[in-house]
Amino acid sequence: MDMIFGSAATIVEQLQKPTLAFLIGGMVLAAMGSRLTVPEPVYKFLVLVLLLKVGLGAGISVREADVVALAVPALAAAGLGIAIVLLCSRTLARWPGVNRMDGMATAGLFGAVSASTLAAGMVMLDAEGIAYEGFIGALYPFMDIAALVTAILMAKMSAARAVAAHSVGGGTATVAMGGGAGDGIVREILADTLKSPAISALLLGLGIGLLGRPEQVYEGFYEPLFRGFLSILMLIMGMEAWARLGEMRKVAHAYVLYGIAAPFLHGLMGFGAGLVAHHLTGFSAGGVVLLAVMAASSSDISGPPTLRGALPEANPSAYVGTSTGIGTPVAILSIPVWIALAGAVIGF
Amino acid sequence: MDMIFGSAATIVEQLQKPTLAFLIGGMVLAAMGSRLTVPEPVYKFLVLVLLLKVGLGAGISVREADVVALAVPALAAAGLGIAIVLLCSRTLARWPGVNRMDGMATAGLFGAVSASTLAAGMVMLDAEGIAYEGFIGALYPFMDIAALVTAILMAKMSAARAVAAHSVGGGTATVAMGGGAGDGIVREILADTLKSPAISALLLGLGIGLLGRPEQVYEGFYEPLFRGFLSILMLIMGMEAWARLGEMRKVAHAYVLYGIAAPFLHGLMGFGAGLVAHHLTGFSAGGVVLLAVMAASSSDISGPPTLRGALPEANPSAYVGTSTGIGTPVAILSIPVWIALAGAVIGF
Amino acid sequence: MDMIFGSAATIVEQLQKPTLAFLIGGMVLAAMGSRLTVPEPVYKFLVLVLLLKVGLGAGISVREADVVALAVPALAAAGLGIAIVLLCSRTLARWPGVNRMDGMATAGLFGAVSASTLAAGMVMLDAEGIAYEGFIGALYPFMDIAALVTAILMAKMSAARAVAAHSVGGGTATVAMGGGAGDGIVREILADTLKSPAISALLLGLGIGLLGRPEQVYEGFYEPLFRGFLSILMLIMGMEAWARLGEMRKVAHAYVLYGIAAPFLHGLMGFGAGLVAHHLTGFSAGGVVLLAVMAASSSDISGPPTLRGALPEANPSAYVGTSTGIGTPVAILSIPVWIALAGAVIGF
Repeated sequence: MDMIFGSAATIVEQLQKPTLAFLIGGMVLAAMGSRLTVPEPVYKFLVLVLLLKVGLGAGISVREADVVALAVPALAAAGLGIAIVLLCSRTLARWPGVNRMDGMATAGLFGAVSASTLAAGMVMLDAEGIAYEGFIGALYPFMDIAALVTAILMAKMSAARAVAAHSVGGGTATVAMGGGAGDGIVREILADTLKSPAISALLLGLGIGLLGRPEQVYEGFYEPLFRGFLSILMLIMGMEAWARLGEMRKVAHAYVLYGIAAPFLHGLMGFGAGLVAHHLTGFSAGGVVLLAVMAASSSDISGPPTLRGALPEANPSAYVGTSTGIGTPVAILSIPVWIALAGAVIGF
Repeated sequence: MDMIFGSAATIVEQLQKPTLAFLIGGMVLAAMGSRLTVPEPVYKFLVLVLLLKVGLGAGISVREADVVALAVPALAAAGLGIAIVLLCSRTLARWPGVNRMDGMATAGLFGAVSASTLAAGMVMLDAEGIAYEGFIGALYPFMDIAALVTAILMAKMSAARAVAAHSVGGGTATVAMGGGAGDGIVREILADTLKSPAISALLLGLGIGLLGRPEQVYEGFYEPLFRGFLSILMLIMGMEAWARLGEMRKVAHAYVLYGIAAPFLHGLMGFGAGLVAHHLTGFSAGGVVLLAVMAASSSDISGPPTLRGALPEANPSAYVGTSTGIGTPVAILSIPVWIALAGAVIGF
Repeated sequence: MDMIFGSAATIVEQLQKPTLAFLIGGMVLAAMGSRLTVPEPVYKFLVLVLLLKVGLGAGISVREADVVALAVPALAAAGLGIAIVLLCSRTLARWPGVNRMDGMATAGLFGAVSASTLAAGMVMLDAEGIAYEGFIGALYPFMDIAALVTAILMAKMSAARAVAAHSVGGGTATVAMGGGAGDGIVREILADTLKSPAISALLLGLGIGLLGRPEQVYEGFYEPLFRGFLSILMLIMGMEAWARLGEMRKVAHAYVLYGIAAPFLHGLMGFGAGLVAHHLTGFSAGGVVLLAVMAASSSDISGPPTLRGALPEANPSAYVGTSTGIGTPVAILSIPVWIALAGAVIGF
């Protein structure tokens, strides 16, 4: 009962969060016909700082973790992130009428992790006195970055395929894609993705966080500016989401359905992976719960700027709306499910 | 004696403040022919952050106040702000040779409130052991926003009138303005003002401050960046003020006269309104003093970015010069007058 | 032994510093062909804030110092900064194949001071229990600004000479430069330098720091943003340094030689000047050491943004590479030399 109450309170907090408030505010301004704009060079700077921060934070938390203990769970986390994106690419992103670019952007957010949902999970476990591994906090960058890069790569590949299909005729292009020529294109798009400003900034931050000692500038600059710059990015995305809401009219039900079902499905995938690790390596029951929570959650902080930077054509009404509006509250509500399931299957 | 000394010290502090130092610095740079410029996209971003901060701060302080106790004094404060602007629109803004746009911008600043002058008033009352209502701090956004929006609206209306007069001939236009067609134009300009980037940002911040929970991002981002961004805005305004100082040559005496007389006149208006509230609702003598101080003060922090954003044609030599250079020191000097007057008329 | 170990640890710290990490990160991104860019208006804003901060900090530290005690040592410090730049202009900057603009930019950085190297010197003296004058910290802006302005001025003059030589023929131009006409050009370039955005911002900050009371905005805004904005500027300079590394191929040995020899040579100049002051005014042995450290050090914080702003044509591979990559580690290693020398020549 307490747990349900706790979840509900967390959802209310979620809705009062500045990120969502600025997103809605942006939609209201756009609906009112406001002439407010954020200049393009400023927007690029905000995204650069946001992605450097995400990369730096991930790099620092990985550097501070025990690399040996981290290796296998990190691979599992990355694999989960990729699996969630692949699953979405065959379900939501193929739904009739759903724009494939929008579907893949949504896949990226649902594969990525919400740090605040993960924190809510930790708080609930702590309250129940259930132990978990200390390195869990360093796992989420692996799931996050694997999911976002996979989703961006797949979105760019399907856009390239669409262009190819358009220029040489559908049949031939599909054949060309299936064979050796496809590999060349994958490699080309991967290289292009790594060179894109968004992924470059993310990887640069990751590298400096791992190899340098940027703690001082991270804590004194990137961390404090992050929430503020994010609030302004959310404002921009809200204005754009309103302008592009019309595109969603015919497929909104698909996104709503996905937003409700995905957290449970992904959580089960995470739970299953954790259960295997529990039997093979003695991974704790609390750790299994948190892996399920990570998989169930969808990114509402690090993901949106990455996708907005890397896939500017994708419609934020689709991906931010589904993730921040539906996925995150549902994921928070699902936390007690994973605790109960772990209690029943493994026992604390 | 102590009180006079206190006022003098506050004025010296005022003159050493970074806002004024950067304003003067900008004028010196412009006089030297410096090629320093702040790029337009950056300027727009600075103004956006400044106005969001002003709105958020106002929204949060109103949300935290007792709405029932606040309602009547808030209406009175808003009414005072509007009355001050209307008074100026019939005096300074009609002075022969005074540009109407500049006059209305000055009206807006003198109708709006200086938080630091209000704080100086509170400190003096505290030092004398005179009590006042706790919600006073939440009153100033009402006076501020009412005055600024009224001034911007009237400036835009007179600009529209000038254009109309120019195109269809003075006499006919005046007639058209007086009748039903004028209402349509007022509504149109009001809508246009609300959609302008400056007022949109201010209202967005107000709405999020009222309805959301942006405290964390407000205290960690908007509040710390505010003074810094304001220093750079003041630099920009100083450079522009110098470039446009020539326009002031023939009407400087009007602005100086207004800057000296207005704080006393407006303070009396505030004192009178407070006295009525004292007799009707038992509003405290300290509250009456602070209402007079608020009315006497002119905005040197929140006002300039709002006006620079909403009325870019107005000459900052006129409005910032009169407000920050003359109005604020005079308003601080006038505080002991309101305390003495309240002591004589009401008694503590 | 402890001292050598301390120096080595300081060098390792230096290499892990975010400034160097972002510089190298920028080079890696450029080598990978990343499309990451920082928009020009944002770049201008970053440089503006960085230079205002440098100026404000210098102004505040000079204002807080005892002007009478400071006067003579400040003149000596400024003289040393200028002498180092002049020396470089006759050695490195005249080396066959070395671009004169790049050579003068390097001269500016080696004439300027590294606050962190100076701090390392103070820590080592404190550890040895050696006393020094309290005003030393207020000396470095004089050496810094004198060196940077001299270097920028000389670089601009030689660029103007090159243009003149190109247009009217080498011989005649040299004659014209030697006579009275040259004075006019010097005055013109000095005026032009003072009006340049970079030097204007530096002087504006200095003026406001000296005459205003900007402590609050300095500590709450300029100081915290400084390291972050510098990290992004270093990223930009790293990308540019990579793109222009090819220009260095034939003259890299000249820069390496200068980077190793200059700290020792400049340190000796500082030591000599300090020794004269010791005999004339009783300047302490610790003070002599710190003057040598200041002269030996090269600017890696305040210098790069100033030069990038004032001499955009200069190649950062040359000046930042030589200073941050070679000069700073060598200068830190040289600190024990000055302590030993002072012990031997003056005694503690």
